[in-house]
Amino acid sequence: MTATGWQRAERPATEAALEQVDAWWRAANYLSIGQIYLLDNPLLREPLAPEHIKRRLLGHWGTTPGLNFVYGHLNRVIRERQQRTLFIMGPGHGGPSGVACAWLEGTYTERFPDIERSERGMQRLFRQFSFPGGIPSHAAPETPGSINEGGELGYSLAHAYGSALDDPDLLVACVIGDGEAETGPLAASWHANKLLNPAADGVVLPILHLNGWKIANPTLLARIPEEELLALMRGYGHDPILVTVGERGEEHAVSHARFAEALDDALDRIAAIKAAAVEGTLRGRPAWPMLVLRSPKGWTCPAEVDGLPVEGTWRSHQVPLERVREDDAHRELLEQWLHSYRPDELFDETGAPRSIVTAGAPEGDLRMSATPVANGGLLRRDLALADTAAHARAVDPQARGAEQSSATAALGEWLADVLRDNPHTFRILGPDETASNRLAPAVYEATAKQWNAETLPIDEHLAPTGRVLEVLSEHLCQGLLEGYLLTGRHGLFTTYEAFAHIVDSMLGQHAKWLESASHVPWREPVASLNILLSSHVWRQDHNGFSHQDPGFIDVALNKSPEIVRVVLPFDANTLLSTADHCLRSVGHINVIVAGKHPSPQWLTMAEAQAHCERGLGVLEWAGTETEERPVDAVLAAAGDVPTHEALAAAWLLRERVPELSLRVVNVVDLGRLQQADQHPHGLPDAEYDRIFTRDKPVVFAYHGYPWTIHRLTYRRAGHDQLHVHGFLERGTTTTPFDMVMMNGLDRYTLAIAVLDRAGLAESHAGVRQELVEARDRAKAHTREHGIDIPEVADWVWGRGADG
Amino acid sequence: MTATGWQRAERPATEAALEQVDAWWRAANYLSIGQIYLLDNPLLREPLAPEHIKRRLLGHWGTTPGLNFVYGHLNRVIRERQQRTLFIMGPGHGGPSGVACAWLEGTYTERFPDIERSERGMQRLFRQFSFPGGIPSHAAPETPGSINEGGELGYSLAHAYGSALDDPDLLVACVIGDGEAETGPLAASWHANKLLNPAADGVVLPILHLNGWKIANPTLLARIPEEELLALMRGYGHDPILVTVGERGEEHAVSHARFAEALDDALDRIAAIKAAAVEGTLRGRPAWPMLVLRSPKGWTCPAEVDGLPVEGTWRSHQVPLERVREDDAHRELLEQWLHSYRPDELFDETGAPRSIVTAGAPEGDLRMSATPVANGGLLRRDLALADTAAHARAVDPQARGAEQSSATAALGEWLADVLRDNPHTFRILGPDETASNRLAPAVYEATAKQWNAETLPIDEHLAPTGRVLEVLSEHLCQGLLEGYLLTGRHGLFTTYEAFAHIVDSMLGQHAKWLESASHVPWREPVASLNILLSSHVWRQDHNGFSHQDPGFIDVALNKSPEIVRVVLPFDANTLLSTADHCLRSVGHINVIVAGKHPSPQWLTMAEAQAHCERGLGVLEWAGTETEERPVDAVLAAAGDVPTHEALAAAWLLRERVPELSLRVVNVVDLGRLQQADQHPHGLPDAEYDRIFTRDKPVVFAYHGYPWTIHRLTYRRAGHDQLHVHGFLERGTTTTPFDMVMMNGLDRYTLAIAVLDRAGLAESHAGVRQELVEARDRAKAHTREHGIDIPEVADWVWGRGADG
Repeated sequence: MTATGWQRAERPATEAALEQVDAWWRAANYLSIGQIYLLDNPLLREPLAPEHIKRRLLGHWGTTPGLNFVYGHLNRVIRERQQRTLFIMGPGHGGPSGVACAWLEGTYTERFPDIERSERGMQRLFRQFSFPGGIPSHAAPETPGSINEGGELGYSLAHAYGSALDDPDLLVACVIGDGEAETGPLAASWHANKLLNPAADGVVLPILHLNGWKIANPTLLARIPEEELLALMRGYGHDPILVTVGERGEEHAVSHARFAEALDDALDRIAAIKAAAVEGTLRGRPAWPMLVLRSPKGWTCPAEVDGLPVEGTWRSHQVPLERVREDDAHRELLEQWLHSYRPDELFDETGAPRSIVTAGAPEGDLRMSATPVANGGLLRRDLALADTAAHARAVDPQARGAEQSSATAALGEWLADVLRDNPHTFRILGPDETASNRLAPAVYEATAKQWNAETLPIDEHLAPTGRVLEVLSEHLCQGLLEGYLLTGRHGLFTTYEAFAHIVDSMLGQHAKWLESASHVPWREPVASLNILLSSHVWRQDHNGFSHQDPGFIDVALNKSPEIVRVVLPFDANTLLSTADHCLRSVGHINVIVAGKHPSPQWLTMAEAQAHCERGLGVLEWAGTETEERPVDAVLAAAGDVPTHEALAAAWLLRERVPELSLRVVNVVDLGRLQQADQHPHGLPDAEYDRIFTRDKPVVFAYHGYPWTIHRLTYRRAGHDQLHVHGFLERGTTTTPFDMVMMNGLDRYTLAIAVLDRAGLAESHAGVRQELVEARDRAKAHTREHGIDIPEVADWVWGRGADG
Repeated sequence: MTATGWQRAERPATEAALEQVDAWWRAANYLSIGQIYLLDNPLLREPLAPEHIKRRLLGHWGTTPGLNFVYGHLNRVIRERQQRTLFIMGPGHGGPSGVACAWLEGTYTERFPDIERSERGMQRLFRQFSFPGGIPSHAAPETPGSINEGGELGYSLAHAYGSALDDPDLLVACVIGDGEAETGPLAASWHANKLLNPAADGVVLPILHLNGWKIANPTLLARIPEEELLALMRGYGHDPILVTVGERGEEHAVSHARFAEALDDALDRIAAIKAAAVEGTLRGRPAWPMLVLRSPKGWTCPAEVDGLPVEGTWRSHQVPLERVREDDAHRELLEQWLHSYRPDELFDETGAPRSIVTAGAPEGDLRMSATPVANGGLLRRDLALADTAAHARAVDPQARGAEQSSATAALGEWLADVLRDNPHTFRILGPDETASNRLAPAVYEATAKQWNAETLPIDEHLAPTGRVLEVLSEHLCQGLLEGYLLTGRHGLFTTYEAFAHIVDSMLGQHAKWLESASHVPWREPVASLNILLSSHVWRQDHNGFSHQDPGFIDVALNKSPEIVRVVLPFDANTLLSTADHCLRSVGHINVIVAGKHPSPQWLTMAEAQAHCERGLGVLEWAGTETEERPVDAVLAAAGDVPTHEALAAAWLLRERVPELSLRVVNVVDLGRLQQADQHPHGLPDAEYDRIFTRDKPVVFAYHGYPWTIHRLTYRRAGHDQLHVHGFLERGTTTTPFDMVMMNGLDRYTLAIAVLDRAGLAESHAGVRQELVEARDRAKAHTREHGIDIPEVADWVWGRGADG
């Protein structure tokens, strides 16, 4: 079956079609309640007895009938219009709906053969829900057709827009709960409609579902005047269609007809806009339709329980009837409630759905639960990646560090190639940072920033066809990229290191999604989420303390080691090598930390590749050990600024204490520091000991908080001899070198630490004093002149500290 | 001078008054540019020479003239109306403006006597800006009149609304940058106007400042049609007034008159609403006015530099003229630019501002830079706190754990007293969790939820006078509370542990604010930010993996140990004791983790107080050591569920291995684990060793990620013998006991670990095997029945594991 999409349809919907929708709705509602309550007796073949009821009643009914209602209606228009459609379920805990609809469509059984469309399968479907060893209560990776977990709220609309990018025939129907609509990320996402390209991207149909209540409170958007609500939607750039269904006393058939009319209306308006966009007659940004659906919370559940109103109130949020196993009256009420859907009309004697339920639904890949778009790994194709060597920075092994270069500028040149070579499957996103991060100008020679709002003659690099997306909301950037990746494409999010914390929670949720998805056999792996932190803690000297925070790494490292990778390349060539690796990987979250400022280059491309492949290694050229002289001390570093300072310290020591046998180590991949049973990249203890020794002092210059390195290495043999220098939460507006001095990460402090830890403090008191004075001099110069002392700022390998 | 507030004023503003505003504006602009560029020669007494120019040009001009413009105009209406006003500067990097205005008002010199209002003071004012040892480039704690740092963007409007709570005569003028307006937290904050009480709270005047550009991009809200923009503001519930100033060729006097008219209009509308609210004639929620101000970015800077347009474009975002020290032409342009403000008219021969500048500005506490509201510690009064003992749970030392109780329910009873006893200075905030967290019903006997949107007869506990604020945006909750605290009041934010990550970044920024503020001599300490995480990782079994994340603690612990406290009370009385302590404290961020479910109670109130005061201690009744039997092993715990499991493990061992001398330790305050030189609460090594021993195995059951305990203790003597069990990022929808089993935190695994670590695995192989089988049995029961095995679920201290 081929979907052509964006067709107009006959209107109004026939009575027969709406009867099918109603049957779908009743069947899905029945199956949703069954999941929440029933262990057995799924078709009520016998009177409902205590042993048929779950001992713990877990799940959420309140949002479910509205979701089933929308799903059934979408089925009709998808079938009639042959419209490829992705369904995004924003409301929390709508899991029973997603599972019920997938089972009705047959997808559930295709994915989980044990859960047949039969009475036995239905019993298993019911039992597994919110049950130990079973499935969770949200739309989750286990739910066919889902890419958006209704656990933490706020990301549905961003996921929807991300999914629609570069898929011009795709409709993304996004149900937004009125609880979720109060969150910041959701509120920011409405404006994504100013970015998308009506011709080359798909269409998002937001369905703002006002059932009026959260857990215990009314929702804000349900309690403002209609005029204000419509103004808000128009202010978001939409052409809203408001439709209210399920008012007390209204026949369901009337509700169906009203919503069908609204949905047809929305799809016809979309079809008209799409046609104009394709013909090239569309001028400016269209006002896309959206639906505001008002329906009762918990619609069709018992109106009252124990004398209190339930349907249409917050009391239907979770389990409308409690103590059903113990309370005969409640159990009877549940039985009546289930019978109210007339299950005999919906399921045949074997338990399979009858044709009245299924005949109006789409088939094959048009089923929303079966769309390959929601199992993006099926659609993912490897990127065409240019040879990074073409953009490598030349490094003369005889004069390392002599050339200064911006690592991200080199990356930008390579990314420009990636953009050119993958014109429909790769995106860069960021909060107005692409230029600041020096990926520009190169990337803007390959593409523009996507923008479909008003433009002025003075604007640069803005176009509806642009492949860089910039908006000052880290939430929206991350959400768009997640949607894009989960539907089979590739991308890179670049942002400030400190402000990456804004998406901590999204990172955690995505990590959990990937971790869970990796255990779902029919989910194919999607491209990794790549996050580049290039405006990092050590070079926020001009922005000050509020911009100085390397803790995003720690948030990432708390997630599953199967999923998370943190890499700290330390020059252009190591950045190119790691970025190439990250863009090839699947199933991971790759956090790449690399500065943007011109800085010395250390490794040739070949060396960089070998080093990054190992993930860590000895920089032999920087150390002073020889075969004859066993190592006295190790100076290790992870991160560009720490490595620069460590190398400068190594040089200071080489000149002043030539008899010290010093080994210099660089770590790119933090996972290597962990033990092999803790992280898939973890170094076996013997290899770790070969590099770091078992008993020599190790002074470690680290990019972030020092305890992060201890947390990774506390079981290593030499841990008691490991001394980490890193960010101590001391920051301000000052110079780059003052920043490292404030935190004890500067070359002088590192060199002194090596002397002290190696037991040379007394024997080399003069050298030590000289280093202390050099540090004092650097400090004084900074305070006096507002810039770093030239001997520090201009230092390169091979040149003495005195310039 | 007494402010009466909400007065109407004569209109229009006189020409003389607007000349004063213009003089203010020019003077503030001059001083702002001086801060960015000048080391010396502040009044241009001699031709500008290279040595007068800073070597590093840091700072942001783009937003500054607009801020100075608004500030000058606000000064006029404040003086005319005697209106107490707090200024919130949302746009990033508006620091030069805040500093310039405070200096003009005299406040800067009052706070920093070294920076006189003289030529010498002006030179120092200029030099210190964005200079090592000086002040940052945003409005920061160092800036008089500021409570909102323009570093990370998004929180200005939430801070504004939080400041306005319970201060009915206060106007909060909140400038929102159009970059900031794209963020999620800001977008969510618009709806706070549905919560505030027009009679009892102050008024927020949002000023959406569209200067059209971010760093390198246009802003979305500047590029939508005016009709759409006004619809958006009306949709947010506002009555917008749009005013455009500074169009090319327009006289400044015309711009001033137009903005003055708009501002008077807004304040008159506010005065009318306030009058009606006070008279009691206001019906429903008013549509508060707000201003949309369009002005050129970088207004009044050179129109072109090197042939490229600068004024009115993104190129004026930071430093419009680069290389001024080196480039004679640029330096000449800077000199012309500075002269364009006619400094001789503005500053007298001593360098002090002339009366044309200052005569129109308010005096005393009405100066926005001097308002005590922005130095909330001045206004803070200790809370009246009821005796926690009145709400203590009875614990019989002979039958500990026999009574089950919800810790948060006990807290709720006490908080109800706090609400009653502090009717204007204490608030509880949360994302629809107060009832779910069992603080209700008690707190709703004392107050309601504040709500000023529509209501229905079915609603419960909603009222404009309510003192609990619930909105499904953690950002908004946290931002409101920060605003409330920074202006001198007290509060508690309760939220899901997993979703606290949503405000990670806000937590970090607030911690940085408190840390910096503690070094500003004239800032008085504000009440601590108290965050209660009561729906925590171990009891999200019904919500599943997406709700299971204890990592907020780690984010908090990365911030300054001077600021952050993390406490894990483990029953009702320890929670009451810690909460009482937290509500008395100032200058901290207190993260309190405590479950809401009924669970065993362990300590009497007197014991709880003594234990919490120590922060950790031996639970002697739970151990088996005696004076004659030295300790064989230590079983430690932090957190309610871990302590419960550790106590159950201790009981299992006591019954089965009576010869084992086991010490049981509980840690409430994580800071105690750190060394005394790392944390103000850190235990001296000798005391730590007395509790944990230097060489005995320690099995530690911890609430969060195991490595967190290692990160705190890695330098302690016994660290190699420390074995931590905690959350291993393994979760799903299951039962409570299955959750601890999945992560090896269950009583059986802990007891086995003690046996193994104490070297008893072989000698007590039978006991070990029995424990393994008990665990297997518990697992199987869970999978079979969907509930926990009764011997686990019903276990209490003193009863054998077999029930």
